[in-house]
Order: sequence, then C-alpha cells, then structure tokens
Amino acid sequence: MLLQRALILSILLGFVFSTALGPVMIPILRRIKAGQSIREDGPRTHLIKQGTPTMGGLIIIPSSIAAVLILSGATRELQVTLVAYIGFAAVGFIDDYLKVVLKRPLGLRAYQKMGLQILVASLFLYLASHWQVLPGSLYIPYLRLFIQPGLWWIPFLLFVIIGTVNSVNLTDGLDGLASGVTIIVAGFFSLVAWHMGYQDLGWFAGAISGACLGFLIYNIHPAKIFMGDTGSLALGGAIAALAVTTNMTLLLPVVGGIFFVETLSVMIQVAGYKMTKKRIFRMSPLHHHFELSGWSETRVVTVFWGITVILCLAGILGIQ
Amino acid sequence: MLLQRALILSILLGFVFSTALGPVMIPILRRIKAGQSIREDGPRTHLIKQGTPTMGGLIIIPSSIAAVLILSGATRELQVTLVAYIGFAAVGFIDDYLKVVLKRPLGLRAYQKMGLQILVASLFLYLASHWQVLPGSLYIPYLRLFIQPGLWWIPFLLFVIIGTVNSVNLTDGLDGLASGVTIIVAGFFSLVAWHMGYQDLGWFAGAISGACLGFLIYNIHPAKIFMGDTGSLALGGAIAALAVTTNMTLLLPVVGGIFFVETLSVMIQVAGYKMTKKRIFRMSPLHHHFELSGWSETRVVTVFWGITVILCLAGILGIQ
Repeated sequence: MLLQRALILSILLGFVFSTALGPVMIPILRRIKAGQSIREDGPRTHLIKQGTPTMGGLIIIPSSIAAVLILSGATRELQVTLVAYIGFAAVGFIDDYLKVVLKRPLGLRAYQKMGLQILVASLFLYLASHWQVLPGSLYIPYLRLFIQPGLWWIPFLLFVIIGTVNSVNLTDGLDGLASGVTIIVAGFFSLVAWHMGYQDLGWFAGAISGACLGFLIYNIHPAKIFMGDTGSLALGGAIAALAVTTNMTLLLPVVGGIFFVETLSVMIQVAGYKMTKKRIFRMSPLHHHFELSGWSETRVVTVFWGITVILCLAGILGIQ
Repeated sequence: MLLQRALILSILLGFVFSTALGPVMIPILRRIKAGQSIREDGPRTHLIKQGTPTMGGLIIIPSSIAAVLILSGATRELQVTLVAYIGFAAVGFIDDYLKVVLKRPLGLRAYQKMGLQILVASLFLYLASHWQVLPGSLYIPYLRLFIQPGLWWIPFLLFVIIGTVNSVNLTDGLDGLASGVTIIVAGFFSLVAWHMGYQDLGWFAGAISGACLGFLIYNIHPAKIFMGDTGSLALGGAIAALAVTTNMTLLLPVVGGIFFVETLSVMIQVAGYKMTKKRIFRMSPLHHHFELSGWSETRVVTVFWGITVILCLAGILGIQ
C-alpha cells in the first residue's frame, strides 16, 4: 500500500510541476516566436490555430523528469528509458527549432529526421542490451507465451520504437488528443511496470501521465500551447521504451490503438490513392477524417480518449 | 490477478451493454417525447438543447445492473446498494416522467421530491443496519482514525446521502459533465471496495463506471441524450451508498469535489444574494459561471474531469 501511494505521488508530482511550469514557459515560447505553422493542406478551420506557441514538450519533459527523480534512484532501467525520452525530445526539439524559431518551414528533412531517430533508438537498444534491461524473449499477450528471440529481435524492436514515436507524432493534430491519450497509456504502463516489479519505471510512467494531465490544462481546445515534435517524439520514445523494457511491445497496438490506427489511416490513404487514384478517407490522419465528416474537434478528441480507456482496460487483461 | 481481471471485466461489460443499449433507447425516448425542457434562466446558448431526449439513466442503470449480476452473487451489501441505486432511479424517473412525458414543467414539488428521497435513503439505511452492512464507526481519512458513532450517526448518514444525490443532480447541467465525473468517481470506489474486500461492490462500481463511459459516447457535446433526473439521482444514490458501505463518507467531498463545489456554489450564490443583493458568481451552479466567463462548454467539462482525476488520486492516499 505504501508503494502504491508512491505511484500516486509520481502522478501528482508530475501534474503539479507541469501545471506550475505552464504559465512560466508559455510566455517564453510565445516571445521566442515559437508559433506553430499550421499545415496548409489540413482542415481550413484549423488555420486560426496559426501562431499558437508550440514546443510545449518543454513543459512536460522537465516536469516528469523532476517528479521521477524525486522518487527514484537512478537505476539502470530508468537511465536507459530516460535516454530514449530525452534523446527523442532532442530530435523533436531540433525539428521544432528549425521550423518555428529559424522559420525553415520544412524543418529537418525526412532522411535527417529518420536518421536521428534511428540513432537514438539504437543507442537505447545498445544500452538496454548492455545493461541487461532488454527482455530475453518476446511476450505474447493473451496467449501468455514467450517466443525466443532470433536475428529479427533487434530490427523488430527498432521498428517498434520508430513506429511508436512517429505514430504519436501523427496523432498530435488536434487540441488535447496526443496529450490526453498519453495520460491514459502512460497510466497503463505505470501499472504494468509496477506489477512487474519495476517501481522506478512505474514512477516514470506515472510522472509522464501526471505531467501530461497538467499540460492538458493549457492544451485542451482552444489550445494555448501545442506540445510540438519536442513533446510528441519524446512521449512516443518514452512509451516505446517502457513497452520494450516491460516486454509489452505486442500490447502497444492494443493500448496505443489510437496511435496505431492513425498511422494505419495514413498508410491506407497513401496506398489507396496510389492504387485507385481515389481517397479512402476524407483526409488522413484519421482524426481529420472524422472532423470533415462533421464531428467537432472536441468530439473526436473525447471519443478517442474514451476508446483509449477501454483499450487500456482490455490491455490489462493481456499482461502477465 | 484473476480477481482484478474480474474488476476490469465489470467495467468492460458495463461499457458494452450501455454502448449497445444507446441506439435502442434513444429513439424510444425520442418517440415518447422525453425531450428535456431547458431552464429558461440558464445560459442563452443552451436553449438549442431544447428537445434533446432525456431519461438516459434508462441506458446506464439496466446496463450496469446486468453487468454486475453476471459477475456477482446477490450478497447483502450488493442488495442494499442496489436498493439505493434503483430507489433513487425511481424517484428521478417519476420526476422526469411528470416533466417531459406528462408535460408538467415543474415535475414533483420540492417537498414531494425531498420526501421520496428521504424515504429511499431511510430504507437503505434501515436495510444496511439490519443486514449489518453499516460500518460500526466513522473513518477519518488521512488521519486514519475511527470515531465511535453516537446519536448523530443516522442523521449524518442521511444528510450525506441526500446531499450527494442532489449534488450529482446539480452537476448534471453540461454535456458529459455528470457522466464523465461519475466514470472517474465510480472507478475510484471500485478500487476502494476491492481493496477493502468487497468484491461485489467493486464490480458494482466498475459496472457503473463502464456504463457511464458507454453512455458518454451519446452524451458528449453535442449531446444526443441527457441522463435526466433518472440518471443523476440514481448515480448519486449509488455513489453515496458505496461511500457509506465502504466507510468512505468523509472522502466524498474530496473525490466528489466537483459535486461538492457545485452545490456549495449554489448555496453561496443564494446566501450571498440574500445578504448583499449582489451575485457572487455570474450564474450558479459553478459550471455556468465559467461558461459565462467565456469558457466553452467543452472546456469546463474537460477541466472538471481533470480535476476529478487528481482528486481521486488524492483520495487514494486517504483510504485505509
């Protein structure tokens, strides 16, 4: 019971820190002209979002790290997870900085962004392997089987990490969507990590969940700030790192089902258009499809939250 | 772990049932002209809600009862809690039926409504006492003390029940507000009941939480249906009954802080106006104050949800 209290405390600390950091960071980000450029090919109603400051990840990341470091010592599994978190935050920050401060609208080129992501993911996998934090087999949820890893192991994990990071990035297109879904998914991983005996990762995930909840105060519609790539790549990296260390990679498409289908919708749209010259969705990623189908932005967001709650409950049934 | 699975299952069953029952009940309620009359003295923007069907409690209540009865036998504590749930649902249903079907805009008179509520609360307390489900002392959260009950015991519990029921009723004034807050508060009580060894109450609270989540699909802005007094009195009754049987009555103002301050805002408004002839809030209950301060309806609702998450986390720190 005492330890469960600490889990709650990690959420509360993350929340308090990011709630407090918001009013400090938002004016700074506005002053350095970190206003988001809104994609011109997105829904037209989103053009009013032009000028909203971005790089809100700079609220979430320090808050959650401070919260976890108050509670936890620097264990190996926490250190390696922080490498992924901070590493992907750095990649996102470079991209945001080029785009919004230096006004280079395209930011990093696709190959540069992918290269840096592979670099961070490889560093994480190398350290995790070196420090023996990497699971020795692949857990199959629901069936409760373990598969012995082979040559595919590292490429598979690399694919999971890069895929998750970019999925969270794609999902971050409506006010409160990526932050809200991450509150729930990180909450799920705090329970999983705790359940598997990784207290420190439980605190880490709890702190991220709480920090996202605090950030949501400023991020819900109409958003005063966006998390930017700084936020979405970092959160994606943290979620992926948590899934890898707790051996729950195959649960990611379940609990992060929203991230998964958002990415799938983009792939289907592109492939479908190439093959049939017709658009399967009104617009991709999926959240824009629902908007253009007449749903309000807030309706899409709250429905996607609700689905994530259900998916995470279903996910709990799949853990060891 | 197996039993925790059953807790998750109660939430999922409640969710599936109410999601499925929604499309069945909504057209029926629309056909019997169960359209809500919107208070004419509320925010003017709410007048477009005129005609939205109400009595959505008829979706939540059967779904949650079906879910809990699949999982649980009819233990004494479940039976007595169901008495409060169904009893308050009946009071709310009579009121709704008079208002929206028989078109008597005032519904039950205040003294009739209060009389029926006291009747249900007394029946619950009598049965709880008779079946020895009533706690033998009052638990003081955080201090972890127990106070021996005296003559004030029954009047105090009566006050808690009636107060909770009417607070949930007052809170039910924005799309998704009462249902969303109840998802979280019922989720809290499912953990508490479970933690204290009342599995069946854990399932009951979980089923309510899930049923409210399913209902929320139809109840979020713009709402296709309202829960009506049928829903809000029943949910208030269930929450109060859960708090009484688990001896967590003094945690109610914490975890149900939104319900509490909504009621407080009405009291302050009335008392303040009587004393100073000035309005302290732009409008009471509190959610209308924020709306008239320029917040969108969805912003008020999501912020109140977020606060409830934090309050329930703080509440967990106060349980035995």
